[in-house]
Formats: sequence, structure tokens, C-alpha cells
Amino acid sequence: MVAKSVVLLSGGLDSYTTAAIASQQGFALHALTVRYGQIHHQELEAAKKVAHELKVAKHLELEVDLSRIGGSSLTGSGSVPKARRLDANNIPSTYVPARNTVLLALALAWAEVLAARDIFIGVNALDYSGYPDCRPEFITAFEHLTAVATKAGVHGNRTRIHAPLMNLTKAQIIQRGLELGLDYGLTHSCYDPTEGGRACGRCDSCMLRLQGFVDAGVTDPLEM
Amino acid sequence: MVAKSVVLLSGGLDSYTTAAIASQQGFALHALTVRYGQIHHQELEAAKKVAHELKVAKHLELEVDLSRIGGSSLTGSGSVPKARRLDANNIPSTYVPARNTVLLALALAWAEVLAARDIFIGVNALDYSGYPDCRPEFITAFEHLTAVATKAGVHGNRTRIHAPLMNLTKAQIIQRGLELGLDYGLTHSCYDPTEGGRACGRCDSCMLRLQGFVDAGVTDPLEM
Repeated sequence: MVAKSVVLLSGGLDSYTTAAIASQQGFALHALTVRYGQIHHQELEAAKKVAHELKVAKHLELEVDLSRIGGSSLTGSGSVPKARRLDANNIPSTYVPARNTVLLALALAWAEVLAARDIFIGVNALDYSGYPDCRPEFITAFEHLTAVATKAGVHGNRTRIHAPLMNLTKAQIIQRGLELGLDYGLTHSCYDPTEGGRACGRCDSCMLRLQGFVDAGVTDPLEM
Repeated sequence: MVAKSVVLLSGGLDSYTTAAIASQQGFALHALTVRYGQIHHQELEAAKKVAHELKVAKHLELEVDLSRIGGSSLTGSGSVPKARRLDANNIPSTYVPARNTVLLALALAWAEVLAARDIFIGVNALDYSGYPDCRPEFITAFEHLTAVATKAGVHGNRTRIHAPLMNLTKAQIIQRGLELGLDYGLTHSCYDPTEGGRACGRCDSCMLRLQGFVDAGVTDPLEM
């Protein structure tokens, strides 16, 4: 029997690559996309396309409106910073408080129901914006939590939290994805697209993506 | 300045008592109620009444539909067991997979935005149904997670997870609440009320409550 996995799928480049790695490792994919109050919907549409392309066993879209909690320009509090200098010691306003804790909690709930013992998340601590919940110590602590949080946890069994991109540069992630035959034209990375839905090219996420393709020596199929 | 706290408020007896204890300890209360797909709405109405009675600074109601994930009779998968013998080694169908992980994740998000460093949750590991995420080791692991999950966590600061009822019997909880002048007639504990909204008296939650009032030697103001 093929082992099940829950994969957090945002519609961006990183989570697409992560899901493809899970698939390559032999896992059946149960993709979870969370509408958490993002100011735009392009990434949710991208998640649908990516899920279809990856032939996932199931794609579940859940909603939890973190904009009611606030505290992030990604959910409507203030404007998304543009063309800033990336600095992991200076966490930008695009950080969504406790988002990855919320996302992993929901993934854990679904994993428990599916009897899946593996969760995949596309966080990365090299070419990133310094978000605290993208660091290896966060992933380790969450995995530790799973060993006591669920029925399986009563017997000391933990749910593995896989973060296969953690120590890759953006260029390495792109190279890995291209080796796996991924079509990055399906994805959406921009935090603040134009009204026409085109990537802005100047937010952190666009800049990391642009530089990643430059460093990888390939052309981004997505126009900016 | 009064320290802020986030208090998870379900509308039941335990969370009401927990909130009152937080208030007695001098915290300003930010009450969080989550509609997670419960099959009935009495407890949400009770949460509103309790929040009003406690004069909370703010009451936030969030929705995340865990019934889409399934796996629990509390969210509509199968029927709520009645008149069963409580046995902490036999987790009943009313367990909602990873619910307290999801609730604490949302509380953590709000606490971060409020700059609150204290979260209160009314879990209890004595007179309970054996849910894994009501045990002290779960609370400890979640508090450990907070030390790396948020901006404050980058500096090694954890958010305290208070579970003041953890080691009390239901009778002791009720006695504590009555000393604090609480009106338990405002609360709702039943997992599966009648169509008229009356407590069933036979689910785990009703049985624990009934026995608690008997053991405390007082009359429950709520009719069953």
C-alpha cells in the first residue's frame, strides 16, 4: 500500500516543488490549501492547477480568516513592502503571526484522520524573509509536539514533518524542480499582484524568485 | 498597565472557570471562541453570554470548519456515545483530531498581535475523556513550540500556556468557580443537546458535569 502524506500547497514555487519531492519519494499526496485571508486569490487558483498537475489523491481547501486577527500586510494590515533589502534579522510586515503553526495544526488534524504519518511543508531558511516559523528549530519543535498531540501520540508515535527545501537556496530549489519536470508557469509567488493578476516583481517573494531563476541560469516561465 | 491574556472560551463550564481565574490573576481577557464545525450552536451562544458576564476586553469568534476534515462525532461523523463508562485508555469518538493544537495555534496568532504573553486554556486531565491533547505533556510541548514559532520566539521568549484546571477534579473546578461567584447557568456542556436545546444528561460531558455537581454537594443551575 502506498503511504499517505499531507502536503501543504500554497500555489507557490516552493510548495509545488515540495509536493513533487513527496511524490517522488513514493507518497500519495493529500494536498491542503488554506485560505487564510490573503489579500489576493491568485495563489489559491495556482494551488488548484498545481494539485491537478500533480494528480493528488485529494485536494482540500479550508478557510480560516486570519485577517480578523490582523498583524500582517499579507492579510490587509498596511501595505506590502517593495524593493526592500532582504535581511533575516528584520522580519517584514508580510510575516503572518503564527501562520505556519496554524497550517501545520490543520495538516496534523487531517493526517490523523487519514492515518498518514508524514506531513510536507515547503519552508526554507536560506533564501527567505526571516520568518521565525520557517526555521529548522520550529519544524523540530512542531514534530516534537505531534508526539503528544494526537491519538497516535498517546503511544509515543510522532508524525514526521518533512521540510525538504530547508537547506536549499532558491536556485537549488528551482534546479531540483526542473529535474522533476515541473512547470513553474503554473505557480504564483507574488505577495501583491497587479489588478490584472500579474506578479509585481518588487515584493520579497518576487525578488527571491527572480534572483533564484537568475542564479539557476534559467528563464522563469512566469512573466513579470 | 494590565497584562493582556488570550483565553480560549468554548461556552462550557471549564473555560468559563479558567477565564475567571485569569481575571482574578489580574489579566485583561481577550476571549477567543472558535466555531470548528460543532453539530450544535448552544455552546457558541453560551460563550457570548459568558464573555459578556466576564466583561472581556474583546471577544473574537473565528471559524474553521474541521467537519471538512472529519473524524469526530462532535463534528458530524457518527453519533455521540451515551451513558458509556469513562475510560481514559479508550478515546471516544467525540475526540476531534488535533483540535487543541488548532485552537492554541489560533490563540498564539492573536496573542502575538496583541503582544500578550499569556494564553489560558481550560483543559483537565483528571475528570476527562482521555483526549490526548488535554494532557500536561501536550501543554508543555506546545509552550515549548511557542519559544520558536513567533517573532518573540526569535529572542527565545515563550508564550506561557496556562492550564489552571489541569490537576483539579470536576468538583474542585466547580467549587473554585462558585468561590469566584460564577453563574454556571450561563454555560453549556452537552455534546448532543435535544432539539429544544436542553442538555441530554447522558453524553460524557453531561455525565462529568452531573457527577461534578454531586461531588461538590451543590445543585447545577442548568436543568437537564
